[in-house]
Amino acid sequence: MIKAELGREFFTTRTVAEALAGFRPARRTPAEPVPLAGALHRVPAEPVGAPHALPGFARSTVDGYAVRAADTYGVSEGLPGYLDVTGDVSMGAAPRVSVAAGTAVSMPTGGVLPPGADAVVMIEYTQQVMPGTIEVIRPVAPGEGVVRADEDAVAGAELVPAGRPLRAQDLAMLAAAGVRSVPVHARPRVTVFSTGDEVVPPETPSLRPGQVRDATAVALAVLVTQAGGAPVYGGIVPDDAAALETALRAALPSSDLVVISAGSSVGARDETAGVVRRLGEIWCHGIAVKPGKPTLLAECGGVPVVGLPGNPRSALVVFRLLGVPLVHLVGGCTAPPPEPSVRARLARDLPSAAGRLDVVQVRVADGVATPVFGPSALLSVLTAADGYVIIPGEATGLDAGTEVDVTIYS
Amino acid sequence: MIKAELGREFFTTRTVAEALAGFRPARRTPAEPVPLAGALHRVPAEPVGAPHALPGFARSTVDGYAVRAADTYGVSEGLPGYLDVTGDVSMGAAPRVSVAAGTAVSMPTGGVLPPGADAVVMIEYTQQVMPGTIEVIRPVAPGEGVVRADEDAVAGAELVPAGRPLRAQDLAMLAAAGVRSVPVHARPRVTVFSTGDEVVPPETPSLRPGQVRDATAVALAVLVTQAGGAPVYGGIVPDDAAALETALRAALPSSDLVVISAGSSVGARDETAGVVRRLGEIWCHGIAVKPGKPTLLAECGGVPVVGLPGNPRSALVVFRLLGVPLVHLVGGCTAPPPEPSVRARLARDLPSAAGRLDVVQVRVADGVATPVFGPSALLSVLTAADGYVIIPGEATGLDAGTEVDVTIYS
Repeated sequence: MIKAELGREFFTTRTVAEALAGFRPARRTPAEPVPLAGALHRVPAEPVGAPHALPGFARSTVDGYAVRAADTYGVSEGLPGYLDVTGDVSMGAAPRVSVAAGTAVSMPTGGVLPPGADAVVMIEYTQQVMPGTIEVIRPVAPGEGVVRADEDAVAGAELVPAGRPLRAQDLAMLAAAGVRSVPVHARPRVTVFSTGDEVVPPETPSLRPGQVRDATAVALAVLVTQAGGAPVYGGIVPDDAAALETALRAALPSSDLVVISAGSSVGARDETAGVVRRLGEIWCHGIAVKPGKPTLLAECGGVPVVGLPGNPRSALVVFRLLGVPLVHLVGGCTAPPPEPSVRARLARDLPSAAGRLDVVQVRVADGVATPVFGPSALLSVLTAADGYVIIPGEATGLDAGTEVDVTIYS
Repeated sequence: MIKAELGREFFTTRTVAEALAGFRPARRTPAEPVPLAGALHRVPAEPVGAPHALPGFARSTVDGYAVRAADTYGVSEGLPGYLDVTGDVSMGAAPRVSVAAGTAVSMPTGGVLPPGADAVVMIEYTQQVMPGTIEVIRPVAPGEGVVRADEDAVAGAELVPAGRPLRAQDLAMLAAAGVRSVPVHARPRVTVFSTGDEVVPPETPSLRPGQVRDATAVALAVLVTQAGGAPVYGGIVPDDAAALETALRAALPSSDLVVISAGSSVGARDETAGVVRRLGEIWCHGIAVKPGKPTLLAECGGVPVVGLPGNPRSALVVFRLLGVPLVHLVGGCTAPPPEPSVRARLARDLPSAAGRLDVVQVRVADGVATPVFGPSALLSVLTAADGYVIIPGEATGLDAGTEVDVTIYS
């Protein structure tokens, strides 16, 4: 009965681009503070400003002598200027001397520019001619050899924007500013269900005929983690609508996203769709992508739900295309990190039906991308591949020798 | 005295390529087992083979009917063949019926092919004409609609190679095969020291004149983690040779790699070199790269040691170029994951001195890479950048409009 009500013919097939642009659930995870050391790739929920100017003091960028730049104007190797060295600056300490006209103070790189000085002349352009006196053979302009007290950041400047995952240098900048904790979006809790009477836990030591170990859940979990989410294993649900409904109802309140790798048969998939429809609204059931057509996108009580094809390979392909962007979206990430890619030439023609995006697995060596073919039921096609090539929906294939972008698995 | 003995003029400056090819410490971390769920990006210490054939049984790839292919030869829409349906196959269970000549068994996708059958005809090419009888309107070849019992992997086949970090699909394949734990290289323990009298811990709430918070250590730690290592904070060591020697001696026995972000002045750097030389052998002190020239590579009692320039920006640039590959090397990673990159056109000319590799920070938008300039003392140059462009040592610059590869920060 469910099948009759919910046959996939009632749902328009969408393209990947339509799904990415059109299925945009409003859900966002709340902000939570995290300490800096644990903030890599976390997504700031708001911009973080500089509590004070950085570096906070005018700082020498070279080893040399702090001077008044005007005292060096016109000097040259033939006609050096002479300055009295009146002291030195120690690292990490305030200068104990000032620079007056005709004087210089010895400076290490990174030291505080003494009062009165407006530049630092590099030691290479000086020579000690007698104790306490140097000659300067090149002029410096005001500001030379120095970074200003607020040159790295003025007080209040945006150190990191909201929505972009934090990178190593962002953490360095926040550390320099004394920011100890960052308000970031909580990791989206992504509950991963596997369904199917044939699916048994991966730890099952030996299989009965017809049984397969759950290969998809562990891979989906790590893809969720890579995308900034926190995977939650929902377990294996048999091909039974009531069992799936119970499991889904239990998971929704504590999930920001639910992923169901659906049964592989048409019946099992339709059953999944029936349950999802009872709990919410189906946005599409069917994506014009190969492999991965029987993909379902829905929202149940404000929680996005992704139904993936039953076989592991198709499930992983579709989850990379559509699931990972949803994890980013819900996790507040507006500037997702790019995926690694290389350019390569196709080793052979790739046929493709127009109107459907094709994801072709390839090996890459020496700038040549060689397709790896095989039934979509085979995981070995994915493990043999270094990455994949996308043949856009409007194309009817790509010729051998075409330069393509290969998204590399990492 | 150390300075006199160890002036950097005694060490040849090396290129980045020479350092990558020539500085290859023999140290490798030992193997340790990790459970599959924690094995993403871990590096197998040996290939992992399939304990048994996969999927382990001949499996239908479509919904339809298991048949003897020969029974369908010659059929067409105009001249269908007729078969008696003698039973069905349930998911996850052994078939209770065989297929004899002239009969068919109903199959779900993923079911076990019954004895006697050699193909599965898709349901779309059949029609039930009366209870217990179907007509078949397209012929199938033997093997069609089926994956063989060992088509995903024969028993003993290499499921994952040694040396390549595990990806999501590798974990899926290992899970399918019932592999619960993988022998991987232990994460290299990377001790990170900061040195400098001016450097104070990042949690220091307010700074005295001349003090700077340690910005580098947290960023190096996350780069180490990204490269598969386990960072260990060595703390901040003052500009004092004895203190550094004590710290280094204490760290070496429990480290697989030591990273010192050295003081920023020439004196502090030479002091670091002096200490390192007393404990081991310096391979080079000085790399032809901008920023990052005062980089030191050494080996102390079998532990590689990297001395980085004092300012955080140069330290991070050099660590990405030379430190990350060392973490991979020591951690047994022979096929490091590629870094994300995009191609873009330079917005302006980039000058560069020949004989030195230049690392230029850029913003990228709409396919255009715009350089971000500023003194190497400024971290804000790095935080403003989306990635970097490398100008090779032999080049004397790049013209505006040149297409370049931008390595993107993630």
